Amino acid sequence: MKILVVSAHPEPRSLTASLARFAVDHLRAAGHEVRVSDLYAMKWKATVDADDFPDHAGDRRLQVMGASEEATLAGRLSADVAAEQEKVRWADAVVLQFPLWWFSAPAILKGWIDRVFTAGFGYGPAVPAPYTEGVFAGKRALLSVTAGARPSAFSDRGIHGSIGDVLYPLQHGLFWFTGIAPLEPFAVYGSNDLPEERFAEARQAYAARLDGLFTHEPVPFRTLDGGDYDHDMRLLPGVEAPGTEGLALHARPRG
Amino acid sequence: MKILVVSAHPEPRSLTASLARFAVDHLRAAGHEVRVSDLYAMKWKATVDADDFPDHAGDRRLQVMGASEEATLAGRLSADVAAEQEKVRWADAVVLQFPLWWFSAPAILKGWIDRVFTAGFGYGPAVPAPYTEGVFAGKRALLSVTAGARPSAFSDRGIHGSIGDVLYPLQHGLFWFTGIAPLEPFAVYGSNDLPEERFAEARQAYAARLDGLFTHEPVPFRTLDGGDYDHDMRLLPGVEAPGTEGLALHARPRG
Repeated sequence: MKILVVSAHPEPRSLTASLARFAVDHLRAAGHEVRVSDLYAMKWKATVDADDFPDHAGDRRLQVMGASEEATLAGRLSADVAAEQEKVRWADAVVLQFPLWWFSAPAILKGWIDRVFTAGFGYGPAVPAPYTEGVFAGKRALLSVTAGARPSAFSDRGIHGSIGDVLYPLQHGLFWFTGIAPLEPFAVYGSNDLPEERFAEARQAYAARLDGLFTHEPVPFRTLDGGDYDHDMRLLPGVEAPGTEGLALHARPRG
Repeated sequence: MKILVVSAHPEPRSLTASLARFAVDHLRAAGHEVRVSDLYAMKWKATVDADDFPDHAGDRRLQVMGASEEATLAGRLSADVAAEQEKVRWADAVVLQFPLWWFSAPAILKGWIDRVFTAGFGYGPAVPAPYTEGVFAGKRALLSVTAGARPSAFSDRGIHGSIGDVLYPLQHGLFWFTGIAPLEPFAVYGSNDLPEERFAEARQAYAARLDGLFTHEPVPFRTLDGGDYDHDMRLLPGVEAPGTEGLALHARPRG
């Protein structure tokens, strides 16, 4: 299969870089075709601005969604964005490797998302509706994060919020929104000081997750058009298991 | 009082820019002192890298948290970061004005957070523990966002997740973590096409929220040291109202 690995850390000797290299090697050894977007190495431009839309007249008000859709449909995006879109289209699965900074993606990775998932590519009237079969139906995604905190702090009752809830904007808001089926996130905790023994364990656990990229069951998020939501995109009363609240509402109960 | 308004949109004629100007004018008219960080106008550098830490030797492995804390405590951060830290320290309240892009802050704003809230400033062993009185105790924060979606899609049962849950990484993970008390977010929905009448309504609603910046009750997040969590940062059994699940666990029931 074809896999895109995106990684986001300024230091080539970092844990993030090591895990990204490990993933690439492991997936290739398993016979997959792998492409890599090492965002810092690429000096990826993080901010959306008028330069992303070369045809946008400087004196016109920049309406980001409109300009984004226009440029996307006309094939007139800046070259760096177009190249990343081609990789996403090509890939059967996307792996994002990053350190959790302030409980979300580093800015450079957020900027990859903001700039690559343009209107007309990832969302908007020109592509299939969100949370359905979606524009990228059939693809899968795996978030692989490192966090300084202990695992209990990201558990269901952990103060940081469960890792799935904290990553919901990516898992559900980016991937599922565009039809990509996200797996449960993979996380290495206590990452500020990771002795070789725990690093070896982490690689082993990561390998098992990478081996299951196309076979493990994705998070069972509900489809918008599957009969669970009303016309205002609210979950219908009584669809959820009794007592379910919060973001867990949007996943079907596991069998 | 002293208020820092941070705004993040590439277009000075955008709704975001209009709302930011409105906030600044309204707060000044009410007698407050206001400073502004207009991130695009400042050409804010979004990505954390070794240049943020001028003393960091190029051949040493960049351990971001370590380098960040060392530079912060030594007063040797890059000038742009130091200037923003001074504004945050100065402010009694911080208002962040931004469009919700992929269910979180635009990359340039995430980069303001990543770069400004360094170890030794916003977190780490050199500052008070997180989720307590905290390093910025006494300060308040208001997120003011625009979103293309209809409000029902961000309601408690809305498919995007409730707006409070979607913004939890900022509300709880950034603000409350550092001791800043966040108010409920202010949101303008249906923002892709906002006729003058609805824009006038939005300004009026925003004005009411700005007027309550120092008097409205913040989100009642629990403190880590208030007796609700165990030593592994997990909420103790039975502390929550019956049936509470998900991120709502971390707020006290409203009286």
